[in-house]
Amino acid sequence: MSGLFITLEGGEGAGKTTQSDALARHLESAGCTAVQVHDPGGTALSDYIRQWVKASKPRMSLEAELLLFTAARAQLVRDVIQPWLEKGAVVISDRYADSTTAYQGYGRGLPLEQVRAANAIATGGLWPSLTFLLDLPPKEGLRREQPQASFDDERLNPAGRATESDKRRFEELGLSFHTKVRNGYHKLAKAEPERWVVLDAQQPVAALATQIWERVQPLLPGA
Amino acid sequence: MSGLFITLEGGEGAGKTTQSDALARHLESAGCTAVQVHDPGGTALSDYIRQWVKASKPRMSLEAELLLFTAARAQLVRDVIQPWLEKGAVVISDRYADSTTAYQGYGRGLPLEQVRAANAIATGGLWPSLTFLLDLPPKEGLRREQPQASFDDERLNPAGRATESDKRRFEELGLSFHTKVRNGYHKLAKAEPERWVVLDAQQPVAALATQIWERVQPLLPGA
Repeated sequence: MSGLFITLEGGEGAGKTTQSDALARHLESAGCTAVQVHDPGGTALSDYIRQWVKASKPRMSLEAELLLFTAARAQLVRDVIQPWLEKGAVVISDRYADSTTAYQGYGRGLPLEQVRAANAIATGGLWPSLTFLLDLPPKEGLRREQPQASFDDERLNPAGRATESDKRRFEELGLSFHTKVRNGYHKLAKAEPERWVVLDAQQPVAALATQIWERVQPLLPGA
Repeated sequence: MSGLFITLEGGEGAGKTTQSDALARHLESAGCTAVQVHDPGGTALSDYIRQWVKASKPRMSLEAELLLFTAARAQLVRDVIQPWLEKGAVVISDRYADSTTAYQGYGRGLPLEQVRAANAIATGGLWPSLTFLLDLPPKEGLRREQPQASFDDERLNPAGRATESDKRRFEELGLSFHTKVRNGYHKLAKAEPERWVVLDAQQPVAALATQIWERVQPLLPGA
């Protein structure tokens, strides 16, 4: 594997998509092939699973949800991430296995060893060289999250109006949930400091982009 | 949990559906509530996953397949099997977690500890009190299997004609694969002799049904 694998983690509204775009532009200016992916996403199976989650999430067991999300990841790793890394590309993933640990494990309370086991099957042992946590206080994350629908666009129906099940989901994803997720991320970062870089996501976009680029540049093939 | 959970395992054509029906009739004659399920099946999520597998199995990674099948099982356990057991019913499942170990583990070669981990998440620790292996020599199983499409009806398109991907799947499911699956089942049965009952599926239907009933009857609530 000659490429480089980088992931962006954090709550909604933290700026992961913006920073993925900025990093891709930096990489391309430096002559690297940058591939941006979104987990869950990037394969037909992920789209199929997202459709189900969008319609049925409130009625699904936590265990089924864990196994579905990791099934999507298993296919993304084998169809997209691994092949691009083998071609020497830099792959930037907006969320990856750590999201499952933070959200399904620390957030919703599934046993961490179950989350770890499902992630081990899905990733096949492929972990990023560098993970940026775009860290936001939960209140600020919730404030930023309300007007838009990005990762959790399943919470809004296609017309953008909240349905009954959307409302239930909004309640579930309240301040206490976001606090548990954020604390989970911090525990993960503390446990593997050589992989994680925690950044204050309240900084200006350009400042964050510079800090990310400064950490990525020395790891580039030929750097 | 006051009910009784029984599973039927074995290759295609071994007579699992017939024996599930016969056992349900015996149970109802004895005044028990018998609930017959099929794994994967029995929930909207299972149907959704089966549709995907039907269309895409040859292009799916083994790991994604494992996680999808166990996601279906997770929902079946929590929505159907557990609630019926709590009501005191006898639940008969045509296949269960052992099928995943035999087919995805021993048959296709996924690491057994990965299959065990995924099954542990899906079952939540719920295992049958009794598992009947309807045992057939692989050649006999293949002979019985050809003209029909039951569990693996995904191998035939709705019109019943074989497509290119059906043909690939038929090749994959050849004699060597069936031999590995059967050997896997025997290893499982040997490891837990108190749970497994191995029966020669080449016996007449009525003889098999009697042997199954003789093993189930003493375990019934109030027996």
